[in-house]
Amino acid sequence: MSIDLNCDLGESFGAYKIGNDEEVIKFVDRVNIACGFHAGDPIVMDKTVSLAKDYNVKVGAHPSYRDFVGFGRRFLDASPKEIENDIIYQIGALHAFCLKHSIQLDHVKPHGALYNRAAVDFDTAMAVARGIKAFDRNLKMVVLCNSEMVRAAEMAGLTYLKEAFADRHYDDNGRLVSRKVNGAVIDDLNLILSRVKRMITDGMVESITGKVIKLNPDTICVHGDNEKALEIAKNLNLLLKEYKNSKGGKL
Amino acid sequence: MSIDLNCDLGESFGAYKIGNDEEVIKFVDRVNIACGFHAGDPIVMDKTVSLAKDYNVKVGAHPSYRDFVGFGRRFLDASPKEIENDIIYQIGALHAFCLKHSIQLDHVKPHGALYNRAAVDFDTAMAVARGIKAFDRNLKMVVLCNSEMVRAAEMAGLTYLKEAFADRHYDDNGRLVSRKVNGAVIDDLNLILSRVKRMITDGMVESITGKVIKLNPDTICVHGDNEKALEIAKNLNLLLKEYKNSKGGKL
Amino acid sequence: MSIDLNCDLGESFGAYKIGNDEEVIKFVDRVNIACGFHAGDPIVMDKTVSLAKDYNVKVGAHPSYRDFVGFGRRFLDASPKEIENDIIYQIGALHAFCLKHSIQLDHVKPHGALYNRAAVDFDTAMAVARGIKAFDRNLKMVVLCNSEMVRAAEMAGLTYLKEAFADRHYDDNGRLVSRKVNGAVIDDLNLILSRVKRMITDGMVESITGKVIKLNPDTICVHGDNEKALEIAKNLNLLLKEYKNSKGGKL
Amino acid sequence: MSIDLNCDLGESFGAYKIGNDEEVIKFVDRVNIACGFHAGDPIVMDKTVSLAKDYNVKVGAHPSYRDFVGFGRRFLDASPKEIENDIIYQIGALHAFCLKHSIQLDHVKPHGALYNRAAVDFDTAMAVARGIKAFDRNLKMVVLCNSEMVRAAEMAGLTYLKEAFADRHYDDNGRLVSRKVNGAVIDDLNLILSRVKRMITDGMVESITGKVIKLNPDTICVHGDNEKALEIAKNLNLLLKEYKNSKGGKL
Repeated sequence: MSIDLNCDLGESFGAYKIGNDEEVIKFVDRVNIACGFHAGDPIVMDKTVSLAKDYNVKVGAHPSYRDFVGFGRRFLDASPKEIENDIIYQIGALHAFCLKHSIQLDHVKPHGALYNRAAVDFDTAMAVARGIKAFDRNLKMVVLCNSEMVRAAEMAGLTYLKEAFADRHYDDNGRLVSRKVNGAVIDDLNLILSRVKRMITDGMVESITGKVIKLNPDTICVHGDNEKALEIAKNLNLLLKEYKNSKGGKL
Repeated sequence: MSIDLNCDLGESFGAYKIGNDEEVIKFVDRVNIACGFHAGDPIVMDKTVSLAKDYNVKVGAHPSYRDFVGFGRRFLDASPKEIENDIIYQIGALHAFCLKHSIQLDHVKPHGALYNRAAVDFDTAMAVARGIKAFDRNLKMVVLCNSEMVRAAEMAGLTYLKEAFADRHYDDNGRLVSRKVNGAVIDDLNLILSRVKRMITDGMVESITGKVIKLNPDTICVHGDNEKALEIAKNLNLLLKEYKNSKGGKL
Repeated sequence: MSIDLNCDLGESFGAYKIGNDEEVIKFVDRVNIACGFHAGDPIVMDKTVSLAKDYNVKVGAHPSYRDFVGFGRRFLDASPKEIENDIIYQIGALHAFCLKHSIQLDHVKPHGALYNRAAVDFDTAMAVARGIKAFDRNLKMVVLCNSEMVRAAEMAGLTYLKEAFADRHYDDNGRLVSRKVNGAVIDDLNLILSRVKRMITDGMVESITGKVIKLNPDTICVHGDNEKALEIAKNLNLLLKEYKNSKGGKL
Repeated sequence: MSIDLNCDLGESFGAYKIGNDEEVIKFVDRVNIACGFHAGDPIVMDKTVSLAKDYNVKVGAHPSYRDFVGFGRRFLDASPKEIENDIIYQIGALHAFCLKHSIQLDHVKPHGALYNRAAVDFDTAMAVARGIKAFDRNLKMVVLCNSEMVRAAEMAGLTYLKEAFADRHYDDNGRLVSRKVNGAVIDDLNLILSRVKRMITDGMVESITGKVIKLNPDTICVHGDNEKALEIAKNLNLLLKEYKNSKGGKL
């Protein structure tokens, strides 16, 4: 079993800067780069792909609903046809910068509200999957563990990477508990580390009710927007390296 | 010597429709498809690439300054770096729909004010050329005859297609006379046809002052936005077919 | 009882033209002018306000979700705070052109998906009402008959105009039947006219199930986007004039 | 003679934050608030107008070319008609938030490339002036000292505020020296203070060649984007207060 770390990158735009790309990239294995619909102008995309090349991390597209002022965080009732073509457009745009820098495009992970919608709505998940497949059937789709996205990726015949969140609780069915629920977000670094350790070694985690459930992600999402997030990323990075060096043995 | 006809396509957007794509495409050999910056949303791009495939015409990207409300017709003082990356972004986006429909992307022609600027400003022309080359050095660049774009394409080592306008006058140096000059635009269908005939057979045309100058374009731009433009396109199409059938002989 | 006709106007943008503003304005009493978020650039807004002045019709703002490519027809999960401030921004922008042309701004009618959402979601309706009130508490709010918008306008203390649709069926509770329901849209001009006649004279209409229900609108929405719509607008205009001339007597 | 300090405010947008509004506002007398074309979404505008009210500073609109990704800093070849209507739209949008917070709109200052263009191009300056006047002839126009904007404001019959830059050099004709010229920007805080002191007391300043020229601004532009800028703003604020308290006497 092997797990890697991913984070969202390239979310600046024009005169505006967001994120701490130069720091967080040191701790991750793959990055999801904004494609212009919620963030990321062409110069930012160029710079971010170049940065990813320098750090030798895997590059993915991070397409979004077309909602710039909302940073792609608001649900937009786009039709499956609109979503599919928006996805194709954005992957193509990012891929262009991969060509420029002679690197491979590896995966696609929908952003924000589109990700959340695809997790619970099969039609949206299928529209995303069809968009990816239309562009290149060898691209991997990043999907939320135990969500509609898994079904869609399988139905489309796409290789997929199951994603988990290190700092979030899951319910007894392995579904992500909403941020709005009290206690859904985990603050304690040690708890986060021990949970991820268990995911890697046993493919298990404790649900929010205390039940032990299956959760064997392929990739874990980290953030770089503040000191605490960087600290978590750094520690998870160390943990995963240790595990690799122990050849899947003891941690 | 061989000349083909090109036209701009896919300039609708969302609820808005522009142009007569289904008609004009019957008469041309290559189309320049809007990429979202001045026109063309992803659904329009998808439909237009599909239409081009149905009619078996060559497909090119038609990137623009980012000026939607101005339809890309206003000069924008973008830096060479901005232009280069805007070009890469837009080519990539259009190319994605070529992948979807399993057709080749053949050329790139800058749109509107960006084209006009590249014609007279070498830095702009080079930024366009660098953008094309970064994406794919085998893409052809459509350049205005006798302009800075020719120099830039040569310097970048790109294959290029010299473009002429059938309904426009040229000065004694082979430069396009501005639309603002009285008499710069030619209305008379027969005059248009005889001028193009001369370009094909002799590589010559009469300048606005009456002098015979060299003008041997590879492609001629036509429009489909009104009945008259369609009539010109149709007749030029017939003329070029006749010429081909005569094996480059008499017309 | 007095009823007037309203229609949406000024929905062109940049190089794009939509609608038949110069025709439909002849038959209506008030117009709802797009404010830039789904349609309507500043030049279009200027021209449309000027046209409204020429025809001496009442002018209203027609604010929308910020969804240009979707023409404001897609639900967007904006927060009440976002909606309220988007409404204020758009009213202000349109009002500026009323100042330029020295005419009064009379009403505000939310557009498309925002209207549909406000009809069924009280929080959205209140956000719209608060936006209007913040700008000018004397502006009228156009509300769908028997919807949450009525409640919101009342709670905000705004004067409101209850709107009905001449070509749409209502359920037994006086709620608009969705377009998606078979038979929800009425095509027959005579039926449309007789239904509106009954609304004016009795404040009643037949529901989709055949039950007679109360429906006494202050304004009826017509369209100008095709010949048929114009024909309906023209005939409703005649009907309402007749009624007025009969001093509210027989038709 | 009386001089005040102004600064640009409200340049955040959606998820993006720029500037140090809460700090710099303490040191200025009037603020120029972005209106959405280069920065400033409706929520930011609302918050910024509210902040301005709290600090009791004068509020102005800061309209721009429609160039979001370029932050309004790139020349855009908009027609006078486009500029005039863009100005009206943006003033109206900001004015709406002044109505909401029951404060007065006091002035209009064009932003970035539009300001720079209006300074040297009379047609642009007149388009700006016409836009202001169409909205409200009592609004003040902020103009660059010794520029085409002065002429335009006078011709339009608008009250205007002549603006100077504390940290910039002027040529012998009182025109601003371009930032690109070596030494055009002044770093030394003491030099800045002594120059402004001379402007207030004598209406004079030393040009970049050392000649003493007339420069009697009504308002001086400061920034809040870094510690140094804040330091300058703070010191200029003290200087101007001292001058006021001395009743225009000795400093």
